[in-house]
Amino acid sequence: MVTQPGDAGLDDAQRAGTGDMPVEAFRAAAHRVVDLMADYLRDLETYPVLPPVRPGQLAARLDRDVPVHPEPLDAILADVSSTIVPNVTHWQHPAFFAYFPSTASGPGILGEMLTSALVANAMLWRTSPVASELEGIVVGWLRDALGLPPAFDGLLTDTASTSSLTALAAARQAATGEAAAEGIAGGPRLRIYASTEAHSSIEKAAMTLGIGRAGVRRITTDMTLAMDPAALAAAVTEDRAAGWRPCAVVATIGTTSSTAIDPVAAIADICAREDVWFHVDAAYAGVVALIPERRGDFAGWERADSVVVNPHKWLFVPLDCSLLLSRRLDVVRAAFSLVPEYLRTTGGGTSGRDYNEYSPMLGRRFRALKAWMLLRYFGLDGLRSRIEEHISMAARLAALIDVDPDAERLAPVPFATVCFRWRPRRFGGREDDAGTAAALDALNEALMARVNATGEAFLSHTKLGGRYTIRLSIGNPRTEWRHVAHTWALIRAVGRELDAAAAAG
Amino acid sequence: MVTQPGDAGLDDAQRAGTGDMPVEAFRAAAHRVVDLMADYLRDLETYPVLPPVRPGQLAARLDRDVPVHPEPLDAILADVSSTIVPNVTHWQHPAFFAYFPSTASGPGILGEMLTSALVANAMLWRTSPVASELEGIVVGWLRDALGLPPAFDGLLTDTASTSSLTALAAARQAATGEAAAEGIAGGPRLRIYASTEAHSSIEKAAMTLGIGRAGVRRITTDMTLAMDPAALAAAVTEDRAAGWRPCAVVATIGTTSSTAIDPVAAIADICAREDVWFHVDAAYAGVVALIPERRGDFAGWERADSVVVNPHKWLFVPLDCSLLLSRRLDVVRAAFSLVPEYLRTTGGGTSGRDYNEYSPMLGRRFRALKAWMLLRYFGLDGLRSRIEEHISMAARLAALIDVDPDAERLAPVPFATVCFRWRPRRFGGREDDAGTAAALDALNEALMARVNATGEAFLSHTKLGGRYTIRLSIGNPRTEWRHVAHTWALIRAVGRELDAAAAAG
Repeated sequence: MVTQPGDAGLDDAQRAGTGDMPVEAFRAAAHRVVDLMADYLRDLETYPVLPPVRPGQLAARLDRDVPVHPEPLDAILADVSSTIVPNVTHWQHPAFFAYFPSTASGPGILGEMLTSALVANAMLWRTSPVASELEGIVVGWLRDALGLPPAFDGLLTDTASTSSLTALAAARQAATGEAAAEGIAGGPRLRIYASTEAHSSIEKAAMTLGIGRAGVRRITTDMTLAMDPAALAAAVTEDRAAGWRPCAVVATIGTTSSTAIDPVAAIADICAREDVWFHVDAAYAGVVALIPERRGDFAGWERADSVVVNPHKWLFVPLDCSLLLSRRLDVVRAAFSLVPEYLRTTGGGTSGRDYNEYSPMLGRRFRALKAWMLLRYFGLDGLRSRIEEHISMAARLAALIDVDPDAERLAPVPFATVCFRWRPRRFGGREDDAGTAAALDALNEALMARVNATGEAFLSHTKLGGRYTIRLSIGNPRTEWRHVAHTWALIRAVGRELDAAAAAG
Repeated sequence: MVTQPGDAGLDDAQRAGTGDMPVEAFRAAAHRVVDLMADYLRDLETYPVLPPVRPGQLAARLDRDVPVHPEPLDAILADVSSTIVPNVTHWQHPAFFAYFPSTASGPGILGEMLTSALVANAMLWRTSPVASELEGIVVGWLRDALGLPPAFDGLLTDTASTSSLTALAAARQAATGEAAAEGIAGGPRLRIYASTEAHSSIEKAAMTLGIGRAGVRRITTDMTLAMDPAALAAAVTEDRAAGWRPCAVVATIGTTSSTAIDPVAAIADICAREDVWFHVDAAYAGVVALIPERRGDFAGWERADSVVVNPHKWLFVPLDCSLLLSRRLDVVRAAFSLVPEYLRTTGGGTSGRDYNEYSPMLGRRFRALKAWMLLRYFGLDGLRSRIEEHISMAARLAALIDVDPDAERLAPVPFATVCFRWRPRRFGGREDDAGTAAALDALNEALMARVNATGEAFLSHTKLGGRYTIRLSIGNPRTEWRHVAHTWALIRAVGRELDAAAAAG
């Protein structure tokens, strides 16, 4: 490559067309990037949580021909500052209350930084001994801290979708004994049971596994949106009689819509009696079991065959990091293990654990490092106090809603997610007729859109009992009561204004 | 939380038990971590590529009770330096020649740093507009740069395992029309075709998808270890007659053992004639198509239904980043799309693309950022020159092996991976008898173990034609000829020494 007039600002490696970025250039650039990161975290509240852009606007601004010549790092970082950073949805913002918050805390970010420089692929023990052994340690720490017995062992995956997919693949293996070898065509139709409130990842796993959406039987829920165990038992019996083979029951502790809690112990009984794999999806709420006094809702999960808890949600580990625990890890291995010659470790002693044998993927990031640093930085006590603080802020918000004559809470608040709607007093306390129902749905949809458009908070919605429901989920360690209080004030102001306009119109 | 004597070295958030790490404490810590990262990259060659530890040793050193109290960051970083960094397998080391190198270059690491602070979940357009739109841009850039037509569109996944799983789920959907909805239990048995040299991820995908290992029919290869298309055509015909439903053919450009190249155009013809999904696994070698003059080996891949290329291998993007391209992305979507109410975007204009609808996972890291920064930093020209340099070093090594009377090359070298064995001249040039074969296998296994034990290089092996084969794969931008030459000298010295001992013994 020949130096050209356009080479101003390029480093030696860019000019030469060989080698990586020179180490000292990397060091200088990385220090600049750290300041950009720290400034971002410092200035979070100056950003609208949801960036005010329409689909296609950013692509129009950013797209051009593929870059052929190297560009100066200055130009790249300038675009990062001007166009990338402002236009992410700010999951780090203390008023991000949508979905379930998934926050990257300081120690977790430090861990990711190290991971990105080490690129220690944790597929085989040999491809990174400390990555594999630290994964074992972190899994053990979390299991112990969650109060689950030592019979549980497991691994870190990217997301709960993968953890549940992996668990359900094991369930399929257990139910058929030959799914991995022979496939499931020709065998009985398999059925997975989950409540009507269970997460879409269960249905997606069934699609991926060849069980199909029709293989997921949704079980009805009670008033608290928790699975009805009698309905589950009846469904299993009915299915067996009709030739289905029950494969797994998924209980959720903390459903996505309303954080409802399935009756875990009753479901465990049914699974034991029916000899069906019992999977517990506690992706969101599982971390609450770090607090021994709060384990009441979890009673029975220690009898599960598999459990998923997501440290990248309410434990402040940067995306991605999901914990899959199982007391039948041998079955998980049977569902996924393959050791071709080029991955066989030869020439030296017994081998450590090769985690790829328990996973749909071969290559695996060194996720244990960030979790290990974070657990040590916060300590269990520090994690517990932060989770308690979120639960307590949610209870305080729920209390405000309960006394507000123009608002209505739509679900219990066992954790830190509050489901409610604006219900102006002029609608009275009676059951909604169709017109009222439609008017309230429209009002709340408009209200949420207006609040989100302010950029001061980001809320998401669901439907509960057919009603448009606003969700406000607290799970960011940077969130203080003032953020919640301000958002609630905003909701009330917008709600009144919209209702006044609707009543006038 | 009450301040205790053990609180020395803790920051305010740790003492208070609330909030994230204070921003300025994070800034200072992140600057320290950057120096640790840069020092690591500077000092890479002082580390033994493969750390000299045995399974269990690190766990014994690192494991203890779950940390209850917060620990000073100083203590955590001290352990990172003393115990973590030295005990990863050093994928970044310029003499990492095992498997396929997967290197994190400077600009890629800067991108990962930013990603970890932004935590912009790219599951929905709305959950991070710029993450989704930049993913579209990067996918388009790579497609264009690889010389594939605009009919291809796609997404970034974690690994080739997931990319191929996703592609084969689409193939299953195309073959059955109802796999996502109804599952495959009642339908015909599906068959996927791949050569005997194809990667284990294809078999693992079949296991995950419910097709099973038996659903993968391995097609024989020719002398160059490339799939025999006549054998493929015959297998498809035979299977149809026996009631199997052909689902997909996987052609590999650059197999894992020997980087063999399947005859893509001939396979494309068969797939077109048989109306079977055509998937191309170019996870390793695909980046070579960035060089227009080297696209001869790829001719026909533009007719594939899906293609996988891994930027985290030979394109220096930090793990994880795999590119899945498909000209039938609508079928990928049919295989995975589910939009529950809580993920529905309401209240504001048309929506952008929600990438989770094309993927087995819901949550998705913002992988486009690092790839975008890297493409701009190196430019296509800079990536091409580095790939050319690796191809040329591999050719130079192959030439040395070819003229060495004590060594034997065991496969062609179309890319940058060399397969060979030590074959001392005393064994002569004749076909191996059983005793010779066993002696040579043992010699080469011992040789590789000895070389790896020096810590000066890391090689891996495979079996080709039943023979223990050493692989040396070049793909790190930090690798210079001196690293290859030194490793070759080491191999020769150890080979001679071992053979002398064997001949004497």
